Amino acid sequence: MSAAPSPVKTEGPLSGITVIDLSRILAGPYCTLMLAELGARVIKVETPGTGDDARQFGPFKDGKSAYFMSINRGKESIALNLKDDADRAVFEKLLATGDIVVENFRPGTMEKLGYGWDVLHGKFPKLIYAAASGFGHSGPDSKRAAYDMVVQGMGGIMSITGQPGGKPSRVGMSIGDIGAGLFTAIGVLSALHHREKTGEATKVDIGMFDVQLALLENAIVRYFLTGKAPGPMGARHPTITPFEAFDAQDGAIIIAAGNDNLFRSLCATLDRGDMAEDPRFASNPLRTENVEALKEELEKTLKTKTIDEWQAILDGAGIPAGPINDVGRAINHPQAIARNMAVTMEDPDLGTVKLVGNPIKISGFEDPSTRRPAPALNQHGDEIRRQLG
Amino acid sequence: MSAAPSPVKTEGPLSGITVIDLSRILAGPYCTLMLAELGARVIKVETPGTGDDARQFGPFKDGKSAYFMSINRGKESIALNLKDDADRAVFEKLLATGDIVVENFRPGTMEKLGYGWDVLHGKFPKLIYAAASGFGHSGPDSKRAAYDMVVQGMGGIMSITGQPGGKPSRVGMSIGDIGAGLFTAIGVLSALHHREKTGEATKVDIGMFDVQLALLENAIVRYFLTGKAPGPMGARHPTITPFEAFDAQDGAIIIAAGNDNLFRSLCATLDRGDMAEDPRFASNPLRTENVEALKEELEKTLKTKTIDEWQAILDGAGIPAGPINDVGRAINHPQAIARNMAVTMEDPDLGTVKLVGNPIKISGFEDPSTRRPAPALNQHGDEIRRQLG
Repeated sequence: MSAAPSPVKTEGPLSGITVIDLSRILAGPYCTLMLAELGARVIKVETPGTGDDARQFGPFKDGKSAYFMSINRGKESIALNLKDDADRAVFEKLLATGDIVVENFRPGTMEKLGYGWDVLHGKFPKLIYAAASGFGHSGPDSKRAAYDMVVQGMGGIMSITGQPGGKPSRVGMSIGDIGAGLFTAIGVLSALHHREKTGEATKVDIGMFDVQLALLENAIVRYFLTGKAPGPMGARHPTITPFEAFDAQDGAIIIAAGNDNLFRSLCATLDRGDMAEDPRFASNPLRTENVEALKEELEKTLKTKTIDEWQAILDGAGIPAGPINDVGRAINHPQAIARNMAVTMEDPDLGTVKLVGNPIKISGFEDPSTRRPAPALNQHGDEIRRQLG
Repeated sequence: MSAAPSPVKTEGPLSGITVIDLSRILAGPYCTLMLAELGARVIKVETPGTGDDARQFGPFKDGKSAYFMSINRGKESIALNLKDDADRAVFEKLLATGDIVVENFRPGTMEKLGYGWDVLHGKFPKLIYAAASGFGHSGPDSKRAAYDMVVQGMGGIMSITGQPGGKPSRVGMSIGDIGAGLFTAIGVLSALHHREKTGEATKVDIGMFDVQLALLENAIVRYFLTGKAPGPMGARHPTITPFEAFDAQDGAIIIAAGNDNLFRSLCATLDRGDMAEDPRFASNPLRTENVEALKEELEKTLKTKTIDEWQAILDGAGIPAGPINDVGRAINHPQAIARNMAVTMEDPDLGTVKLVGNPIKISGFEDPSTRRPAPALNQHGDEIRRQLG
């Protein structure tokens, strides 16, 4: 390998924090992507030869995984065989310089490698350890393998997503992995605060299955209250009304008039004073009870104009409404552009690649419109070894 | 009101942090719920008379909103009219003692109240300010109203969720709000780290629409790479194969054998050596290209046994698989119980109420199985006023 670049420059609220990242595919890497976007230095420790499994996941461009590039931009890579003594010595030097180690192996793997929490904490008392796994590091199912689809199914979210009576539907993005990645980031940052205050490092243990339950919010409340598990409701909110997709003249428009003021304002805007007076629609609980009648009445009026016409009228009246955009229209929306949500990175092989940006905007920090590329396997290995001496 | 209780006891990595919480309904309150679960003291500042809108959202038990209780457990409440001079004086004393203020008003509201970032930062230079809004605090659509359903539609997630050619499907939980709440928490904790290191407080500005884009992960990658927006794919992963729901004898089972080793192991376990040898299924890209043929072949075998039979066999072979649970089966799963994901709170009116627990497990901190109740409107008002002197 030719001369390695200097460490990736980082500027953000987490500048100065170093993350040793053993994680693969999505849950762990999404967590460390967030940390990198906020300024942390993230060093991916990958298996020699193959590296992160996600390097083999499509979509591909010229043989390179765009999936991998997107999630691992701005990180560094060193290939280390954690069963080889010389590489273990390098790894331990890395751990000694790091603030946080993140992994998403199946529980037990770190112990087998000799790097379980007790060992790590004994050797590196300032090192925070974050583990994201399918079912967490305790409980009867702890050792079971899981991927996103499995926890989406087991965790209940698929049972409330899709059309009533229809085929099972997955949430279109990997909510199992991404949700776990976000909670892992919150756990890590809380542990960092605790360490700064007390000097004590802790272990953060996140189970993807637990996270699914935490994400279900009022579906769990409804179940505990009634003993009945809710089912899928198409495009309708279960308890806030009106809050769903309605038919306009040329397709669906979403209207979310979730409180009495907004509902009255909606009726006035549609020139449907009769609905504002209708006792069936007098409160949110009554509107929810009479949701089908409400929809029928609203669509009588909504079908008389196009989505765009209603959008302009409803915007003017301050009533939350919007179209159902495809992914292209969403990321090219003027608001997405203005908020710098489409960024570019210069890949050494592919040239300019577009990616989604960082939704966390923090005053006083630049929100750059470019990103450093994802690393080739072991791209920073020589440089990191030199730094470690 | 009778004598107010002492401040809610907090023990967690964020103990000692005080959050002044102006937020309502879901995105902001979900963020501050996470902070409260991690030990922060959260003081809800509510409008006198009505309070948080969510107090009027179902499901209800004996007239009380279980929706509100679930999201606001363990927080304190003080009712303050921010247009009244005496109440503003109390509010400013609160801000002077707080670490973080969180709000999810429509952009411009804080400025109208005289508490925009410039004013806040000038008066309270150590105070971190977090704003979660529909479209963020900049850009042409900044001032537009938005709720969960609107950003689910506009942000693209509905376009990739549900059955191909089917009706639009919402993600069954409020991913628009909850996603924004999680990113707000990550932003706040990063800002806290920066403040501890440098003494400087910052403003965190989260747009729900931006967050939707950040959650789309590989759908955006695919769009930028191909120029084509992906559509909904039912219960199938777009680029990892096999990774979907399959028909067993008595219903659907999810199998996620996302890499070559797992796929070969799956073929061996099903006694389908022919599939392991089949050139159409030799790599993940080939399996994705031939996904329909693969499904047909797998289901020939899978339809010969029940979900439970396959579950036992696949677990034994270490192949990620699982059923599609409803919400009740999910939260009552032995693993959920073992991980303390169903907790109870003692409500003064309703008695014992069950709620979902905290998925962030941190070593050295208790993971309590009970929670303090959600506050009545202004329940802690007198006590907080006394503390402020």
